[in-house]
Amino acid sequence: MIKTTFKAVNPATGAFLDGEYTIATTADVEAAMAAASAAHLIYKNTSGASRAAFLRNIASEIEALGDVLVNKASAESGLPLARLQGEMGRTTGQLRLFANQAEEGSWVNAVIDTAQPERKPLPKSDIRRMLVPIGPVVVFGASNFPLAFSVAGGDTASALAAGCPVVVKAHPAHPGTSALVAEAIQRAVKTSGLPEGIFSILFDDAYEVGAALVAHPATKAVSFTGSYKGGMALVKLAQQRKEPIPVFAEMGSINPVFLLPAALENRAAQMATTYAGSITLGAGQFCTNPGLLIGLKSPALESFAQQLGESISAVPSATMLTPGICANFNKLATEAVEQTGVSLLGASANLNESAENQALAKVARVSGTEFLNNPDLQEEVFGPYSLLVAVEDAAQLQEIANVLQGQLTITLMAEKSELKEYAALINTLSDKTGRLILNGVPTGVEVCAAMQHGGPFPATNDSRFTSVGSTAVLRFARPVAWQDWDKDLLPDELKDGNPLHIFRLVDNKWTQE
Amino acid sequence: MIKTTFKAVNPATGAFLDGEYTIATTADVEAAMAAASAAHLIYKNTSGASRAAFLRNIASEIEALGDVLVNKASAESGLPLARLQGEMGRTTGQLRLFANQAEEGSWVNAVIDTAQPERKPLPKSDIRRMLVPIGPVVVFGASNFPLAFSVAGGDTASALAAGCPVVVKAHPAHPGTSALVAEAIQRAVKTSGLPEGIFSILFDDAYEVGAALVAHPATKAVSFTGSYKGGMALVKLAQQRKEPIPVFAEMGSINPVFLLPAALENRAAQMATTYAGSITLGAGQFCTNPGLLIGLKSPALESFAQQLGESISAVPSATMLTPGICANFNKLATEAVEQTGVSLLGASANLNESAENQALAKVARVSGTEFLNNPDLQEEVFGPYSLLVAVEDAAQLQEIANVLQGQLTITLMAEKSELKEYAALINTLSDKTGRLILNGVPTGVEVCAAMQHGGPFPATNDSRFTSVGSTAVLRFARPVAWQDWDKDLLPDELKDGNPLHIFRLVDNKWTQE
Repeated sequence: MIKTTFKAVNPATGAFLDGEYTIATTADVEAAMAAASAAHLIYKNTSGASRAAFLRNIASEIEALGDVLVNKASAESGLPLARLQGEMGRTTGQLRLFANQAEEGSWVNAVIDTAQPERKPLPKSDIRRMLVPIGPVVVFGASNFPLAFSVAGGDTASALAAGCPVVVKAHPAHPGTSALVAEAIQRAVKTSGLPEGIFSILFDDAYEVGAALVAHPATKAVSFTGSYKGGMALVKLAQQRKEPIPVFAEMGSINPVFLLPAALENRAAQMATTYAGSITLGAGQFCTNPGLLIGLKSPALESFAQQLGESISAVPSATMLTPGICANFNKLATEAVEQTGVSLLGASANLNESAENQALAKVARVSGTEFLNNPDLQEEVFGPYSLLVAVEDAAQLQEIANVLQGQLTITLMAEKSELKEYAALINTLSDKTGRLILNGVPTGVEVCAAMQHGGPFPATNDSRFTSVGSTAVLRFARPVAWQDWDKDLLPDELKDGNPLHIFRLVDNKWTQE
Repeated sequence: MIKTTFKAVNPATGAFLDGEYTIATTADVEAAMAAASAAHLIYKNTSGASRAAFLRNIASEIEALGDVLVNKASAESGLPLARLQGEMGRTTGQLRLFANQAEEGSWVNAVIDTAQPERKPLPKSDIRRMLVPIGPVVVFGASNFPLAFSVAGGDTASALAAGCPVVVKAHPAHPGTSALVAEAIQRAVKTSGLPEGIFSILFDDAYEVGAALVAHPATKAVSFTGSYKGGMALVKLAQQRKEPIPVFAEMGSINPVFLLPAALENRAAQMATTYAGSITLGAGQFCTNPGLLIGLKSPALESFAQQLGESISAVPSATMLTPGICANFNKLATEAVEQTGVSLLGASANLNESAENQALAKVARVSGTEFLNNPDLQEEVFGPYSLLVAVEDAAQLQEIANVLQGQLTITLMAEKSELKEYAALINTLSDKTGRLILNGVPTGVEVCAAMQHGGPFPATNDSRFTSVGSTAVLRFARPVAWQDWDKDLLPDELKDGNPLHIFRLVDNKWTQE
């Protein structure tokens, strides 16, 4: 018999939760994509103000779910209630951020070159260009943010803000949470008077539905946050399409942290405490988890190492998101410390025996020379694990920078006085990352206009875009130019007199006139 | 013996031209890419003002070549001197357009979110983001614009303006022209005091060198203008890389023109004359050549058809760019009129017998029903050929719009009074194209900020970017965010006080302060 439904598991107990979720059929995929295509022809013509109202309605509907939603998410993910309350605020906050941007309207990058009928040798046409929605977007829910990167997360919010219908493939780790949020969106669609097809959700605990969505001719973009393996599988599936489409796969990172000598000298213990916290936050289940710490050999580095080991040993175990993630963490963290030259710096033995799927934090160390010899040490261990690299000298530090893979973030812990000495290092590092941090931790990604959450491969497959922050909307738009078009029929963004009062480039001058 | 050099052919005579060009070896590819990577670490840190000066130096060096360059290009391409003089102006004009944009500086999309140390529950970091160069870019010269889309064409100019080193794979149809322009660029590199590695050129009359460049790990983007087959071959090669990189393939289009009833009624003859000119301009060798004309059956359409056939019959033959392109045109134009239901509307018999590789213009017609039955009729015939589709009724017109593939341009020939009646048609068409034109011709692509030259597949493989106009620079840049970075070490674009006086989004407000 073919399985047609699945259930969610509570990772803290290992038991099935109430509720059965129906696995989408090929017909369901067809229906969702056909509805999205039809809705696109209407939704693409809505104003920024109406998209903003819709996004705010979604935020309100999610808030109205309150504890019902937070409790369901906690049961399905093992994440604490306080964390999920914060994540709910982030989710509604980013919906409103995209609403504000859609309403303000300048994000469409309107450019106007007016006609010059008298120009010689040829007259110049009137040409006006702006970004328009790319079409139906398939969003894959992520397991590690059951609210902020899932059904109504940043991908959905930015696609809807851009004017694109969304079809969500729900993550099987939190189907109940997904269903609650999907119903909230569907209520907002209705109260906003928009076509139902602009949002659909499909369930599956395997890969077929996702693969069918990526392959579907009506799909115009795909967005994913998760593992390297999962992301690249989607990239490869999309490459088999006749029509190429953009796939945005945020595939995680080891987020190297460079501990420069003067900073180590001045505040080794403080940095060790800070990083023990960053490494174990949320059971290390962040794509910005600092998985690599790099410092020049010195007594100060030794005291950092000792303090880090001690701090990590004291961290209590935490429930991981799924049994699969937990098993994978245990396997990879064990294998990592068995590599040549790698030694354990500290490991928590503080196990919560009353819960299942517990991660015990671990930190290890290796020499710069061994690190350079073993590219496998750059592989992500998803969970509360980090590797300290003790480097011989400045030349080896630069060598390590040279071989680093692409990252979401790179952090420097440094005194201002020593930065200029490391200018060449910083010049190299800026090519390897989407975000450079000074004296902070990579965990905690601010949702704002200046955020860049996306880096060179393999952090993402396309470093030109971000999946967090208001410019995430640019992933789902393309430019169209209107030449000598009828002035009354132009989109409002391009009309004479600038009725929307947005910033535009008019005859090569930026203006709000 | 392995062939190590090749010669150019004069298409008007079929004879070899003077000069031998050395086919690049694997070692040459390695050397060019290694030099580009090393130069990147320097060039990426140059100011917009210094890139502008460099681009203007290139323009001056090209102008200094004068008739030597134009004569060489004409001998190698068969294009008339006047056309190439115009193209030289376009080439130097676009170098200066990108220079101005680089100097002005706002194109980097600087965004600043200032710190909020007192924010609850968590303080907000200072985050500043802008576009930075993506790294070495491989540019493929195009045959149909030996100056404006070749060695120092729009792709090279925009990549250099973005701050990226360029390695050009010269088009084998005009190696002498390519060499002259490459030397001009190399002189400009020297007088601008920039590292030599920021520009290299490699020759090959086959595919190996291009394939090696696309596969090279140091290559960070690829840019191409040419055939669907050529473009998709590069896309597929890039998909075999470990690290995905953006490929921008502008693969041409049939540029449908919709002739609406009132316009036909009022000015059928005038439109026929205009379009006979557009179809045969430059022997039809433009990616914006109008290869499809669509109108509702009517006496006015008949008079348009008759006039078009007559005008086309009178057009003299013209030399095509290469013997291969000419042979391909003759084959495809012959096959096109042999398709079921297709009949010849007019063909030029006005052959210039004193020259080789002559294209004779041809126009054909077919019914809307036959057009819908035969997807092959949407394939591009590169050269002076166009197909008129006589449509039964408005419903069939909409059906044709529904099945149209992606296009660089779609044109409406219409009276203002009839536009509203065709709102649904226009709504569909705007999803199928990068540029919508009213009462004009698609040939003649203005190089300006508002231009969009790139459309849905198969016109290009990525509709989100343009290969003509100043925003072409966005293809070669990616965002980086600096978090709590040392204010003195930030790029000037992101410094407090806005020393470059560019437009920036500061705390969600656009400002030049």
